[in-house]
Order: sequence, then C-alpha cells, then structure tokens
Amino acid sequence: MIELVQPLLAGDRRALARLLTAVENERPGIEQALAALFPHTGRAWIIGVTGAPGTGKSSLVNALAYSYRADGKTVGILAVDPTSPFSGGAILGDRIRMRDLTGDKGVFIRSMATRGSLGGLARATRDAIRLLDAAGFDIVMIETVGAGQSEVDIVRAAQTTLVVEAPGMGDDVQAIKAGILEIADVLVVNKADKPGVDNTVRGLKAMLELGHPVARDQIASHHGTLLPLEPAANGHNPAFWLPPIVRAVATEGQGIDDVKVAIQAHRDYLAGHSRLRDLERQHIEIELYDRLRAALMTRLLQTIPAGAVQQVIDRIQAREIDPGMAVGEILAFQDQSKAKVQS
Amino acid sequence: MIELVQPLLAGDRRALARLLTAVENERPGIEQALAALFPHTGRAWIIGVTGAPGTGKSSLVNALAYSYRADGKTVGILAVDPTSPFSGGAILGDRIRMRDLTGDKGVFIRSMATRGSLGGLARATRDAIRLLDAAGFDIVMIETVGAGQSEVDIVRAAQTTLVVEAPGMGDDVQAIKAGILEIADVLVVNKADKPGVDNTVRGLKAMLELGHPVARDQIASHHGTLLPLEPAANGHNPAFWLPPIVRAVATEGQGIDDVKVAIQAHRDYLAGHSRLRDLERQHIEIELYDRLRAALMTRLLQTIPAGAVQQVIDRIQAREIDPGMAVGEILAFQDQSKAKVQS
Repeated sequence: MIELVQPLLAGDRRALARLLTAVENERPGIEQALAALFPHTGRAWIIGVTGAPGTGKSSLVNALAYSYRADGKTVGILAVDPTSPFSGGAILGDRIRMRDLTGDKGVFIRSMATRGSLGGLARATRDAIRLLDAAGFDIVMIETVGAGQSEVDIVRAAQTTLVVEAPGMGDDVQAIKAGILEIADVLVVNKADKPGVDNTVRGLKAMLELGHPVARDQIASHHGTLLPLEPAANGHNPAFWLPPIVRAVATEGQGIDDVKVAIQAHRDYLAGHSRLRDLERQHIEIELYDRLRAALMTRLLQTIPAGAVQQVIDRIQAREIDPGMAVGEILAFQDQSKAKVQS
Repeated sequence: MIELVQPLLAGDRRALARLLTAVENERPGIEQALAALFPHTGRAWIIGVTGAPGTGKSSLVNALAYSYRADGKTVGILAVDPTSPFSGGAILGDRIRMRDLTGDKGVFIRSMATRGSLGGLARATRDAIRLLDAAGFDIVMIETVGAGQSEVDIVRAAQTTLVVEAPGMGDDVQAIKAGILEIADVLVVNKADKPGVDNTVRGLKAMLELGHPVARDQIASHHGTLLPLEPAANGHNPAFWLPPIVRAVATEGQGIDDVKVAIQAHRDYLAGHSRLRDLERQHIEIELYDRLRAALMTRLLQTIPAGAVQQVIDRIQAREIDPGMAVGEILAFQDQSKAKVQS
C-alpha cells in the first residue's frame, strides 16, 4: 500500500481508488499508508450531508458539487449507505442522479459500504475522508442516509453538517428529528417548490426554539432563510451558532448559492476563537477512544484461550453467573495470563 | 440496592421503580442487585416494537397491552427515547396515549432516557428488561423510535420484534427501511384504514422479496396478512421465518388479535430446533463483548496518567503522529505501567 502514497499525493486517481478499496476492506498495510498520508491532511473543508430518504440529499450534493466546480474548487464525494446484508445498498436509486458529474477530473465520487459493523463503517469513512483530503480536494462531501447513531458517528468527521428536510415527510414533531437537529449546522429545506414547505420551515423553527431557548426571539422573527449570517458578515463573530434554515430546489439549482453562503458563514464562525481547533480536537478524541476500544478487545481475545469466552457464555446461559460477573472473570483471567508470560 | 431484590421478586412495584432508576443512573450497588436477580430472569416474552415516528407505535403497544391483560397476562412496558440533550425526550407527545392503562396493577409502564451514550442506553435497557422479567411480568414490550443502529442495539434484547409501518410515510423504496426490515419478525401496517395502505403493503412485500429470494413465490402469492402461520399451525416448524405482514388500526383495536397470533407463531417458531437458545446465546455474546469493551477502556484510563491522552491528542492535532500510531503508543505505555507494578 505504501507505494501508492506518492502517486496519491501527486493526484493519481487510480492510486486514490485503490487506497479507498484498501480502507473499505481493511487490507494489511493500509495503516502504514494512512500514517504516511496523515501529515498531508487537514486542508479540505469537510461537509456532511444527511437527512431522511426522499429529501433529495443526492441531488443537493450534486448541485453543490457543480457549483463548487464552477468556482474552480475540486470536490470529493463519499456516499455512505448503511451496511446491510439485506439491501447491500443496491436498492437505492440515488446514485443514478450523480452521473452527470462523471468525466470532470475535478470531481471524485465514491460509494462506500463495508460489510462489517457500523463502527467499522464510521472508521472506514474517517480514513476515506483523509485519503480525499490528502489527495488535495478542496471540498469533501459525505452523504449519509440520515437517522440514528451511525449517521451521527459518521458526521462527526465533518466540519459543517447539512441536515436536509423536505415538505410532506411527516409533519409531526419528531424525536428523531430532534436528534438530527443536534448535529445540524445548516438546515436545508429541499424541494421548496412543493406544497407544505411553510409547515416544514415552521416545524424546524419550533425545534430550534426548543433547542436554543436563548435565541427564541431571533428565531421567532426569522422568516425562513439565513439566520446568523448578518453578524458574521459584519465581521462580528457571533457567540454561538444558530443553524440557518435555507430553502432550495436542488434539481433546479435553486437556493444552492444560499446553501453555499450558509456553509461559508459556518466556516467563518468556526474560524473564530479557535473553534475549528476545538472541533478537530473533539473529533480526534472520539476517534482515539474508538480505536483504543477496538484494539483492547483484539488484544484481550488474543490473550485468553479460544473457547474460554464460549464457556463463559454457556455459564451465563445456564444462569450460573451474570454478565457483569463474567466480565470480571475474563479480565482476571487475562491478568493471570499476562503475569505468567512476564514471570 | 441489594435490599430491594427480595421485595422486587415479591412483586413490590416501588422496589422495581427504584431499581429501574438505579439502572438508569448507574448507581453504585446496582451490579450486585442485577447479579442476584439474574437467576430469576428468562421467563418473560420480550417484544420489541419499533418504527418511524407517526406510525402509531405507542397506540399499538397500548392496544396489545390491553389485549394481553384481557388474557390474564401481566405486561411491562419500556418506552425508550433516543438520548438527546436537545429533546430530553420531552417533545414526544406519545406518552399521553398510554394513560388509560394506569391504575391496572398488572401493567407497569416506564419511560427510559439515559443522559449518557447510546451504548449506555442499550445497556440500561437490557438491565431494565431483566428487572421486569425478574419481577414476573409475562410480557415485556420495549418501544423504540425506530431508525438506526441505536434501535437495532436495543431491539437485540427482544425475542420477537415488531416493525410498525403506516401508509403515506414516504412510498420510496428506502435503504433505511431495508435496515429495519432485517430486524423485523412481524411487520405491522398500522393505520390500515388510511389511503395508500395497499401501496405500503406492496412496498413491504417487495422488500421481503429482495431479502428472501428463496421465498419469492410465497411472497408474490401472498395478499397481505399472515404469511408463515399455516405451516406452524400444522405443527410443521418452517425452515426459516418469513416476517408476516399484518394490517391493524391500533386506535380502534382492529387487527390486534392478528398481531398477537403472529407473535405467538414466531414464538412457536423459535421454540423449534433450539432456535430460542441460539438467539439468547447471540444476545449474551453481544452483551458480553459490549461490557468487555467498556471495562477494558475503564481499566486503561485508570492505568495511564491523567493528561497522557490529552498529550497524545495534542501530537495528533499537530500531525506528529497519526491516530493508528497513537493507539500503539498508549497500549505500550499501559504495558510498561503494569510491568512496573508487578516487578
């Protein structure tokens, strides 16, 4: 893998594609390549795009990519589908709408789906973003089918997260939306030419009010486009970020400039008061803990004899010990094995 | 906590409520109480109920609880909301519809939301189920806002999982639905008096066909109610389980008997060929690994000096080392500390 590092840095697309495959499949040697590339990361702006199926996320990513390309920026896109032996990601028709970007060398699109755990998918996505970053893309967009912890984990690698809504996706105030709103830096109401768009905007405003009680007046007087842009544009960096609500019709290219302005405003906001540094630090901490947990588990399973875990499970199933006691036993066993090795 | 064990086993509701609170807040002493109660678990039938907001999950749980009560069975209900500092679970209006069950001593309802991680929520839910099980409830229902890995984790503690759909929730074939279908033992199309119900059933059948290609003919000839019941009723245990699609109008009590028949059929299916044993084993294995990961991490953080992790994060942020190398360093440091203690 290490031999692909220089070609990737030099802009070789095949080297990039091969390293992405290696990341997805956890090939041996990929860790060294990632370590070698790591000093070359940290330059791309990483945009997460999430939202329920049917909100037109892919069309939005597509339209944004076009627009950034017109500005002369290069764009890498990672489309992350939930790992599912059931779907295999194959029943999503969304990919088709991306086609018109192919042929442009300044755009690189990759669909990701690992067979392993969702934790594995988050890890692979993080590494894939680093590959695109090191390969020199100005903008990296990660599209995920938004709902639940897996998407939250994946989006944690992004600097600016767009949450996409659309009219008529259920007008109830939804707990699940609340979870997603937490991670939103910009709210995009796509398909804004459809009936019910005012309801959707109203619903989102109500959710924002619940989440940001301090800013209730600001939200109440706000009628549906860019909320916190004025202070940022005036050069004053606002004390906190209130996700703007932006209307768009991605398939027609409508509102795309507004979305870009909102993204830039969020970028300006992060640039102030070392916020970007803090955000990066937070992401690194999460990643480090994830990796440590996985590594500790791997070491544990190497220490204790094959079959020991199965025996413990037998005893739990027979209700001889409970899972809490079982953990204590396995750890004590590990300590004994290590002590033996060292003495 | 241990003093609450006997009262709980004797049916004291206040002891149950206090232990549930202790589980939610990870109070000291709860582990011993859970260990003492563990031999008394494994008797309840555990039903997971999941589905998108607006599908009427709570009404379904409510109607099922009523119906099981009429059969003389006792029912425990755990309503699990996603952990969210944003929502705090408070904006869900669903709880209100449960009210008419209060006053019945054979029903116990509890809403759960831990402040911690989603992993923590899954753990707390598992322990809460055990408390209800040990307290002698015949049926334990867990209701989760369905979508994403967190719900999958929570539902992994259930023996029979109902996935609730409703007409008009978006007719696209959805990758996210595919993920949820994987965990469905019974598909309930609720609000079956609403327009579009045939579309919803058709969509679900199409998804089932994708997932169970072997049974394509069976599904194609199937017009919307209980699929695999006939063989089970004949005393033949089918070779695999095809989730039946059951129509219901929970608020009117319509179709509830059909849902119960489907649940019983699944229970009969699991009873055959040691499938229930295998399922339990699988659940135990998942839980044991979860707990081991958490315990290993706790031990690691106790071994290495405070500040060491922060220093490593500094160096990652400065791009001096990459996260993969950092993990190696931290583990080596742990080994040295242990060796020092032992020598």
